[in-house]
Amino acid sequence: MIRVFVTGGTFDKTYDEITGRLSFSDTHLPEMLQLGRSRVEVSVRTLMMIDSLEMTDADRDVVVRNCQQCVESRIVITHGTDTMVKTAAALAAAVKGKTIVLTGAMIPYAFGSSDGLFNLGSALSFAQVLPSGVYIAMNGQHFVWDRVKKNKATGVFEAI
Amino acid sequence: MIRVFVTGGTFDKTYDEITGRLSFSDTHLPEMLQLGRSRVEVSVRTLMMIDSLEMTDADRDVVVRNCQQCVESRIVITHGTDTMVKTAAALAAAVKGKTIVLTGAMIPYAFGSSDGLFNLGSALSFAQVLPSGVYIAMNGQHFVWDRVKKNKATGVFEAI
Amino acid sequence: MIRVFVTGGTFDKTYDEITGRLSFSDTHLPEMLQLGRSRVEVSVRTLMMIDSLEMTDADRDVVVRNCQQCVESRIVITHGTDTMVKTAAALAAAVKGKTIVLTGAMIPYAFGSSDGLFNLGSALSFAQVLPSGVYIAMNGQHFVWDRVKKNKATGVFEAI
Amino acid sequence: MIRVFVTGGTFDKTYDEITGRLSFSDTHLPEMLQLGRSRVEVSVRTLMMIDSLEMTDADRDVVVRNCQQCVESRIVITHGTDTMVKTAAALAAAVKGKTIVLTGAMIPYAFGSSDGLFNLGSALSFAQVLPSGVYIAMNGQHFVWDRVKKNKATGVFEAI
Repeated sequence: MIRVFVTGGTFDKTYDEITGRLSFSDTHLPEMLQLGRSRVEVSVRTLMMIDSLEMTDADRDVVVRNCQQCVESRIVITHGTDTMVKTAAALAAAVKGKTIVLTGAMIPYAFGSSDGLFNLGSALSFAQVLPSGVYIAMNGQHFVWDRVKKNKATGVFEAI
Repeated sequence: MIRVFVTGGTFDKTYDEITGRLSFSDTHLPEMLQLGRSRVEVSVRTLMMIDSLEMTDADRDVVVRNCQQCVESRIVITHGTDTMVKTAAALAAAVKGKTIVLTGAMIPYAFGSSDGLFNLGSALSFAQVLPSGVYIAMNGQHFVWDRVKKNKATGVFEAI
Repeated sequence: MIRVFVTGGTFDKTYDEITGRLSFSDTHLPEMLQLGRSRVEVSVRTLMMIDSLEMTDADRDVVVRNCQQCVESRIVITHGTDTMVKTAAALAAAVKGKTIVLTGAMIPYAFGSSDGLFNLGSALSFAQVLPSGVYIAMNGQHFVWDRVKKNKATGVFEAI
Repeated sequence: MIRVFVTGGTFDKTYDEITGRLSFSDTHLPEMLQLGRSRVEVSVRTLMMIDSLEMTDADRDVVVRNCQQCVESRIVITHGTDTMVKTAAALAAAVKGKTIVLTGAMIPYAFGSSDGLFNLGSALSFAQVLPSGVYIAMNGQHFVWDRVKKNKATGVFEAI
């Protein structure tokens, strides 16, 4: 059983047709798992629904505590890409003995051309086989939390 | 570096608008890797472009020999789901010391609602971390080649 | 109020993931009207769900009789492209004083890259403003029923 | 021959994956016409690429002058929905003897679930058959410029 925590991020951005702005409503995770015909046993919980640039230390604590307290030892977190590495560091400092994989998307899933479904398949797979630790799964790759940064010019996660 | 062998299957079926039938033209693999913003180093080679129900023993030999002879030790094969397990068995008998992951799709990628992108992200991820052996990656899960069958009534791959 | 008669055709083909073949289930018309945010008052009725190559004279009679008997004077018919002109001729011979617009698609709507939504918007619009007669609306254009043929090599409807 | 003037609007909004914001780059019109397999003879020209809430009187003058000066007597204008009626009024005051149809979208075409393709098929069709005048084509319907308003709460264009 894999626990999936949803925090928002580009993954779950939608277009609000009344205001003409990007916004968040419900997560697309269940729809994406259905589209992928996933049979991985998961338990999905939405912790927050925010742009990761607006994630406060208090928000980050919520993520950490949920990862500490859940009974599952394998966890996937959907997260905005901008501060994904920062949250990974907070998790690495506070959660031991669990395999935690953070993933996200560069393009909202609600758009036809999103990388979200690819990343979700990737993150769920890494979460099933990697040893305990905190990882980022983006661009088809996985990185230990302190060996990666997001290249803000290209949007690509790179090894450091 | 991961070697990707394309054999066709539902993954790559397209709709021929002149004949009104399903058909194969070029593989969608490069387009899918681009959509997923994959940065995994891959070398893609199309071996054949067929429905796996029509895959002969001679075709299967081509797949086996390519897996034996390529320099890469990590391989992903896109394959029709109907005889995926049979090809996996042939590979297991003949290729040693390599990690081979077969994957496919229930819905063509060219359709908007395909599971293909999810499966590709999953297969590429499993191929990077699993020990040598022959595996099937479908429905977000991975199975050793002789521990799985496709449930023809539901289209789901199940452990045996 | 516009009457919409559904007869199947490429418009409504779906991919049966268990058999791996193209098939018909329910019509996509209501979903397409919703996607187009259509506010045209319509009454949709499915007459049959077949490939137009398999449409018999008896089937064609069903279409004709429904167009004769419905109270609406403006009608859109979704139809396979291969025999669309033949059905249009049958309608022109038997239905007077109504505006009937036949339309279809070269790619199934269930595929991401269908022309169906464009054609539906076009057909509904022509049906609201053209004088009585039988027309084919394809490729953004409209043709009187006896001034058009489908070019089978290109899939395009051309004036004759 | 129909002249198509592009002014931007939701129709052409894209998601900038580096900034995470909605933005404009090139118009999707040619791609949409290709997807719709349109054979309507059109000449597309981008006049500006802006949110219609930011359209100034000077911008509106550019639209008016282009409609006056082009040789074509049938014109489609893609436009943001928020001030579409205002631009239609400016055109009605200054351009005589031409059929001008404004259209737009509630959801960007780059999103998978846009109404844009439906609206484009509708607008091109109305533009071919309506007498001279200035019209708005949205929601599958057409309205004379001074008989319509956008309901800002629902996003629907309604007759007044």
